[in-house]
Formats: sequence, C-alpha cells, structure tokens
Amino acid sequence: MALIVQKYGGTSMGTTERIKNVARRIAKWKAQGHDVVVAVSAMSGETNRLIALAREIQDYPDPRELDVIISTGEQVTIGLLAMALKEIGVDAKSYTGWQVKVATDSSFNKARIQSIDEAALRADLAEGRVVIVAGFQGVDEANNITTLGRGGSDTSAVALAAALKADECQIYTDVDGVYTTDPRVVPEARRLKTITFEEMIEMASLGSKVLQIRSVEFAGKYKVRLRVLSSFEEEGEGTLITFEEDENMEKAVVAGIAFDRNEARINVKGVPDRPGIAYQILGPIADANIEVDMIIQNVGDQGTTDFSFTVPRGEANRALTILREMQTHVGAAKIESDDKIAKISIVGVGMRSHTGIASTMFRTLAEEGINIQMISTSEIKVSVLIDEKYLELAVRVLHKAFGLDQAV
Amino acid sequence: MALIVQKYGGTSMGTTERIKNVARRIAKWKAQGHDVVVAVSAMSGETNRLIALAREIQDYPDPRELDVIISTGEQVTIGLLAMALKEIGVDAKSYTGWQVKVATDSSFNKARIQSIDEAALRADLAEGRVVIVAGFQGVDEANNITTLGRGGSDTSAVALAAALKADECQIYTDVDGVYTTDPRVVPEARRLKTITFEEMIEMASLGSKVLQIRSVEFAGKYKVRLRVLSSFEEEGEGTLITFEEDENMEKAVVAGIAFDRNEARINVKGVPDRPGIAYQILGPIADANIEVDMIIQNVGDQGTTDFSFTVPRGEANRALTILREMQTHVGAAKIESDDKIAKISIVGVGMRSHTGIASTMFRTLAEEGINIQMISTSEIKVSVLIDEKYLELAVRVLHKAFGLDQAV
Repeated sequence: MALIVQKYGGTSMGTTERIKNVARRIAKWKAQGHDVVVAVSAMSGETNRLIALAREIQDYPDPRELDVIISTGEQVTIGLLAMALKEIGVDAKSYTGWQVKVATDSSFNKARIQSIDEAALRADLAEGRVVIVAGFQGVDEANNITTLGRGGSDTSAVALAAALKADECQIYTDVDGVYTTDPRVVPEARRLKTITFEEMIEMASLGSKVLQIRSVEFAGKYKVRLRVLSSFEEEGEGTLITFEEDENMEKAVVAGIAFDRNEARINVKGVPDRPGIAYQILGPIADANIEVDMIIQNVGDQGTTDFSFTVPRGEANRALTILREMQTHVGAAKIESDDKIAKISIVGVGMRSHTGIASTMFRTLAEEGINIQMISTSEIKVSVLIDEKYLELAVRVLHKAFGLDQAV
Repeated sequence: MALIVQKYGGTSMGTTERIKNVARRIAKWKAQGHDVVVAVSAMSGETNRLIALAREIQDYPDPRELDVIISTGEQVTIGLLAMALKEIGVDAKSYTGWQVKVATDSSFNKARIQSIDEAALRADLAEGRVVIVAGFQGVDEANNITTLGRGGSDTSAVALAAALKADECQIYTDVDGVYTTDPRVVPEARRLKTITFEEMIEMASLGSKVLQIRSVEFAGKYKVRLRVLSSFEEEGEGTLITFEEDENMEKAVVAGIAFDRNEARINVKGVPDRPGIAYQILGPIADANIEVDMIIQNVGDQGTTDFSFTVPRGEANRALTILREMQTHVGAAKIESDDKIAKISIVGVGMRSHTGIASTMFRTLAEEGINIQMISTSEIKVSVLIDEKYLELAVRVLHKAFGLDQAV
C-alpha cells in the first residue's frame, strides 16, 4: 500500500492503443492496493503540430497565447486516459493544471511551479479513484494558462509527488532506465540499478535525455524517490535515483559516460590580456540568450590571450555574427568556429574520493591518438572536447577503461 | 461607437489563412471605434476528430471526460485568433470558458449557460483590447469543464451579448443571411433583410441550419439584437432577427419555406380506439430518446384508429423494433414505415392575421398533383408531409405562389 505518482510521456501516449496499454499498467498497480496519481504528456507530435499552427500566424508567437494553445495537447490525453481506465472498470478523474491547481509564476513557455493544491486529489484517492493530471501546464496568479517548457511533464510528476509526499515517482519512458552510456554507441552499456541525484543531473545535462533536468533538481530539493522505467516492458525495475550517499558505497567510481554532439567551439584569438576581457566577449553572447557551456582562456604571446567557448551548434553562426561586429572594439586578431566537435564526459560521485580519474581518461584517449581540444572539470565529472569523428571510438574505450561493461 | 459581439464558426476558422481574414475583419470594426468581443468555434473538423479519438477508447465516451477533450478545439482557435490580431497591431486577449467564467449546469455535452461574469471582459474592453472567448464551453460549479452541444458557439455569443448588453450580436457563417428558402432548390430565393425571432425559430428547427435554435431562443429571452452575416463577403448586411412587431408590418405574409428530408413516417394501423393509446405507443419511443416530430391520429373503422408519426430517418429502424415488440400488447393490426418522405413548411408571423394561407398551400400542391400525407399547423407555420420525389417541385411552386421571389 503505497502512494505512487507515475508519469507517461508522449511516446507512451502516442496512440489510443498505447493509451489503453498505459491504463492496463495503471490498473495493475491499483489492483496491488496502491494509490496512483498519473501525470501525462501530449500525444507524441501533438505539441509540435500546435506550435507549427501558431507559427503560421506569428513567426514569434505571443507567449501567453502560445501556452493557451499548446496546453491543449495534455488536456486531450488526460481525458483519453481517464476514459481508458473507466472502460476497464477502474474509476478515474482527469485534472487540467488549473483544476488541480498547479500554481506557477507568469513566465509563459517556461513557467516554474510554485505550489500544488493537493486537497482535491487526496479526496479522489480516498474514494479509490486514479487521479490523472495534465503534465507540462499550470496557471498563474491572474488565471493565465502557463506551460513549463519542453519535458515539463517530468517536473509536473515530481512536483505532484512532492506535494502528495508520495512514496515513489515513476517516470515511464521509451528506455528502461539510465545506462552507463548510449547502448547504440556501446552495445556493452549496462542499465544502472541506481544513480545518484547529482550524477543524474550531470548525465541529463550532458545529453542523456532520459529525464528533464529540472525535474531531477526538483526531486533532489524535495527528496522525492524517483525511478525511470520503460513503458513498453512489463517487467524491469528501471533505475532508481538516490539521494543517500550510503547506497552508493559499492558503486563504481565512474557511473557513466555522457556525450553531446550538439555543440560548436568558438575561438577568439589574440585578444589583449586585460581584466574584463572575458566579460567583454561573453556579455553580448549572454545578452543574445545564447547558452555558453565550456569556457577556456589560455595565455598567449606578447600580452595577448586566446579565448575559447562552446555554444549550441544551431547558435554558432549567430554568435559569430555578434563577435565579428565587435572584433575591432575588443581587439581580437582572429575569430573562428568549429562545429565538427563532440563533448564527452565521465560522471561519478566516486571522483570526489578517488584521484587519478582524469588522468586515466586522458591516457586512454591518448593511446588511441585522440587529441583533446578543451577540458572542463567539476567535482563529479570531467568533460573533454574532441574531434567529432572520434566520438564513438572514444566512448567505447572509456567505457571499457572504467570497467563499466562489468556487472557491479 | 457600439459594443459588438461577433461569432465565427468552424468554417470561418478552418485554416490559419482564414483566421487571419477574420482578424482583418475584426480590425475594421475596431478601427471604426467599436468595442468588439468575439466568440469562436473550433477549426472545422476538429471537434469530430476529437470525438473519433474518444470513440477509439470508449464506444460511449464518458461525458465528463469527453468535454475535457472536445473543449480543446476552441481553446486552440482563441489563441490563434488573438495572435492573428496582435500580428496586425490590434491588442487582444483570449479567454477559455472557465477564465471568463461562463457558468453552466453540469449536463456534460449539452450544458446550459447559467451566468457569465463579464467584469474581466469589460476591463479589457476599457483598455482597448479585443476580447476573444472560446465558444461552446463553460464550467460547472465544481470546476468541471462542460460543453454546450453542437452549434453551442452561437449560444455562447448570444449569452455574451446578453451579459454585456451589447448593441448587436453578429453571427458570421458561410451563408450571407437567412433566405426565403434554400437557393440550391429555388434559384430565385431571396435573402431576407429581417426575420422575426419566432419565424427564425421555426425556420431553424425545420432545417434551415443557419443558427442553433437555442441561441435564437436565448436572444429572444434577453432581447439581443441578432444578425446573421457571411464571413466570406466583405459587404452585405445579412439578415437581422427582430423582436418588434412594428418592423414586420410591411413584410410578406409568408417569410420563407423550410424543408426537411431527414424524417421517416411510421404508421401504426388498426389499434383499438381507446383512451391512453397514444401514450402506449409513443411512451416507449420517448423512453428510447427518439425524437418524434409530427403526430396524427385518424379515426378508422369499427372502433379502431390509425396512428402516424415521424421520427429522424436514422432512428426509424430502432422505432420499428420497439413498436413490433409491443405490437400484440397494443393490439395493432399493422406497423409500417416509409422513409421516402419530405416535410415542407411555410412560415410567417403574418399567418396570425391572414386567413387562407393553408388553403393556398394545399391548392398549389394539388394543382401539381402532389398528394399530402400528413398536415400539422401552428400559429405561424403550416407543415405538410409529401413524397420525397416531389420535394423540389413543391418548394418551387410554393415559393412562387406566396410571392417570395418578388422583392418586398
């Protein structure tokens, strides 16, 4: 007898047949005596269809009105799932964000949840109903509809679990858990039974797109027991995201290897080595809302310095345009970009207490003749930038070097 | 400087291009200094698409959840229209039913509007905004989403006009007004400049599907000045639905000719002529939710009577099955049905003060050798049932006989 919050994504809700499968899965949990609250996404492709409609009207859709439109995707799936449950004899009731209500701030398209009124949901649970809540959406103080941004349904689920003090929040997705790395690149990749909250954040932000990172942060903040599971497999316990250090004692030092092919490197060469130069270069980039990831500054010759950073590949040209406009003003000798690069990161909380992890990484890559272009480290990860063509090779050799293909 | 409520149907909102056209039309009214409130339908086909989705899950979709789903169609179009207005520099804001709020009873799928809170809308109008409200939807006391049934957006518009005490409620549709009869049958059919509220109700219920009948009743109750216009023509003043008798003084006696090919006649012959027989026959039909239109009972031979009535054509077989099950019990000699029939009605408030209208109708049909199977009359209409194959001929000759092809 537990209170479980489950989240089903767009792929799981992609057709009415799949929605019926989700209903059967929920019914099993219910039959075991659990209380179940479900957060759902829109049918896969639906949010994109709605955004495309909006863009036929406005190149940059009005943010408030866009949320009115795109929040309908989840409103359809909550109704369909409630029907599917009733059809197999399980009482259920759907809730939109405002019906719950899920209170957010007023940042349309990327709102943040402020509070959830769980009273009505508890009353339904007490009467034996499955409660189905539209993910991705909320309502601000002035009763405007808001949405939480891409992947926001994960956050909805975790926030519901936090508000209801649920025993577990289960994120059903099209993979059966978090892997040591992408199995499409390394067939020996293993599913992790557990991963720490911090590792998960690093893995997620580095391209293992299993969970929206904000939902993991939310789970960490409110100590929500979070599990990633496959919605297409009947069995399997997925990957549990843990918060207690104890549970990690026996884990390998490196938990997994993440990678990202979606960045471009920009070099600003031969700028005067004077205070404030980093801000002079990166300030306008930030003002243009371009996200900067790795940043490196090297000492160059004769009082100049070389400055490199990475940006999302799709933003590289825009960043170059901004930089070239101020090239003379900054006094840069040369500005160039390279989008044939990839970032690889090894992640593990064990790095805190183990030395030599980084050097093992560098040696392993050197042995394969792979040049490292940039390095960035944090307490629990080491990221390197390499030529994109070596990506698969690098991930494979690192996966082996850190023993990730061995059962723990 | 007037306050206008406009309603645009699914065809007018059918594509983003058409929505842009609607925005331009609204902008013109706004530019003339008017305050404009708009009620919109879903894009044509969208409500049917959503119902089909629901039926993939349940043959008889749960009524509450169906309303959650189908109300999304209008939520998309309010957002798109608000964007289209902003795109051409007209400030606008969208409202769902619950945001307004449009309070209804809890009869899902066919809810009735109880009240409209117009305070927020007035505030927007005062700030120069166009207010766009989702038609067809409301919210009940327990915050459940409700819908008003097919054509409910017309009712939404009229209810908004009543709540706001608007100067006029304009229903934009794919025809440019109410005609003396269907121009596809009689090319000489004329658009009526005015039609009385009562005539409109008779015309609408008889098959001139220009306006949802409930919206006309609503307009009558709250004395809303209602006008039907084409959303595809720039000019034209459509048809005004009037309530004052004065305005009708110069009108023709017969306002128009409506017809309906969608009924079937059922005859129950040779039943005992005793009290309660009509209820015995029609009670079970009503219990099965089959709508009965015309009813006639004739005295037959030897203490028996013949009983005839019409039902929607699609329900004829179901009605026959019900009747045959109780044929012995009722003591009917014969039960038969005919779906090759059509109903023609002449409608006009002038009939109240003019005699001989019905006999002109009967004589005109007799002159063409058209047999009348059933007759039913009210204060302002005469309906006859004839063989379907004579429908076009009958409408043409009646249209001429009552001078409807002459300009008033």
